[in-house]
This record gives sequence, C-alpha cells and structure tokens, in this order.
Amino acid sequence: MLKSVNHTSFTVSDLDRSIKFYTELLGMELISMAERPQEFCEKVTGIPGARMKIAYVKGADYNVELIQYLSPPGQKLDTRNNNIGSAHLCFTVENLMEMFHDLSSRGVRFRGEPVNIPAGPNKGGLVVYLVDPDDNNLEFIEYPSK
Amino acid sequence: MLKSVNHTSFTVSDLDRSIKFYTELLGMELISMAERPQEFCEKVTGIPGARMKIAYVKGADYNVELIQYLSPPGQKLDTRNNNIGSAHLCFTVENLMEMFHDLSSRGVRFRGEPVNIPAGPNKGGLVVYLVDPDDNNLEFIEYPSK
Repeated sequence: MLKSVNHTSFTVSDLDRSIKFYTELLGMELISMAERPQEFCEKVTGIPGARMKIAYVKGADYNVELIQYLSPPGQKLDTRNNNIGSAHLCFTVENLMEMFHDLSSRGVRFRGEPVNIPAGPNKGGLVVYLVDPDDNNLEFIEYPSK
Repeated sequence: MLKSVNHTSFTVSDLDRSIKFYTELLGMELISMAERPQEFCEKVTGIPGARMKIAYVKGADYNVELIQYLSPPGQKLDTRNNNIGSAHLCFTVENLMEMFHDLSSRGVRFRGEPVNIPAGPNKGGLVVYLVDPDDNNLEFIEYPSK
C-alpha cells in the first residue's frame, strides 16, 4: 500500500514566477524543470490535449511539484480555505514571527495573522496561513521551545 | 526558515466520509479529530465566522489533515488538475496495478489510467491520478524495481 510520501503539487499559471516565489522568498532549491510528452499528460490526467511543464523545488528535504499546464487553459480557483477542494501544505519553521514580518514586507500575502494554538499536542505553538502567487495555500507552524 | 514538512491538508464536505476513505480504502490511521475554537479559526484563516472540525490521518509516516468547515459554508471547487490552484498529494506505493484494480472495484475514481513515466529520473515507473470523495487529488507512483 502507501510506502512513503513523495511530493505535494500545485497547479500554477506562471512557472517562472512560482519558482521565484518558492526559491527566493521561501528559500527552496530548484531541482528540475521540464515539459512532459503530451501523450503521457493526457493519459495520466484524463484531460484531452493536456501538456504540462513541471518544476520541482525542494525545501526542508521535501519536494514540491509546480505544474503549469501549457494546454488546455484552466480556470483560476477560489482557494479560500473553507472551499471544498482547497488544500494546503504546512512546513514547520523556525522564527515564524520573523518570517511573517520579513515575507510580509516583501509582498507575500498572509490569510490571517500568527495565532497561538489554543489546545492539543501543539498548544502554545504559533501558526499562520499564507498563499503563493496563485493563491495556493501554505501554512507555517512553529512549535514551542521545550 | 523551513525546518521540516508537517502535513498536507484538504478541505472536505463530510469529515466522517473522508475519514472512511483515507482509513478503509487507503489504509491510513486516524490520529485525532476535534473542533477548534472559533476565535482561533477566524484569526488563522481570516474568514469571519470560521469554525473548523479537523481530523488527522497518518499513512507511510506522513500526516494528512482533513478539515470540515462547520461555518461558513464553502463552495465546491472544480479541482481538475489543469485548474490554477488545484493541488495534489503523491505517495510512493507498492503494487500500483493491484491497488488500481482493487480501489477501482471499490468505487474509487481515477482521473486517468496507470501510465509509464517516459523520461527523467523515474523513467519506467508507473503513475496514476485519483481523487478522494470531494475530488481532492491524489497520485500514486511506483518506482521501477532496481
């Protein structure tokens, strides 16, 4: 059955812009970028005429896949977190408040404000929601120091 | 900066139905399920009136967070893979063809068919796209045996 997690993927509108966001702002590393053959794209997605250009960026030893569909054009989804089918990827970080202020000053959009987790195993931790240039959702958590 | 990956999250319409899917069909384990205080939900999401009920399921040593918004009601997104803001979570699996046939026979919906990866580092591997009950996207990859 499930053996290991492989990656989390987001569909983006402009691969170059997204790569800049994930590398220059979040500090991830660009691993690869290449187009896939159309026949492959159509079979795996079930979308006639599908053509993907795919980049992998890696951070904290985890791969994030960024896919730009060269065809057919998709619609932009309203990824607000309460919409069914909205997703997010969460990283544990160090110095969440520092990242929040630094990234905010560099134009990164946050959904809300850093909030203390009120209960449960991560009680006292800090959490914040943010978005990438296409409103793909991300989350940062900082655990309380022991 | 980024320290480790923490989880991938999907917003769902019916938490019990989703938990069944991830545990009974994908073999994951239910870790926790609880409602969060409204003040916390509103602050972190920036959505007035937000109330979340959250379950964690774990598989292959990775946490997936399933969130049902008790309020406000969200719209169902068209998560077809070429739409901007569509996401997916990919697991490496064993016996992909067996899982494809078994899960298909149990009603799981696949986006396309298992396809051999034509090029790149995973050449010869098998890949398939599928969806959960709310059309949140998942992917399975099986690497070629060495």
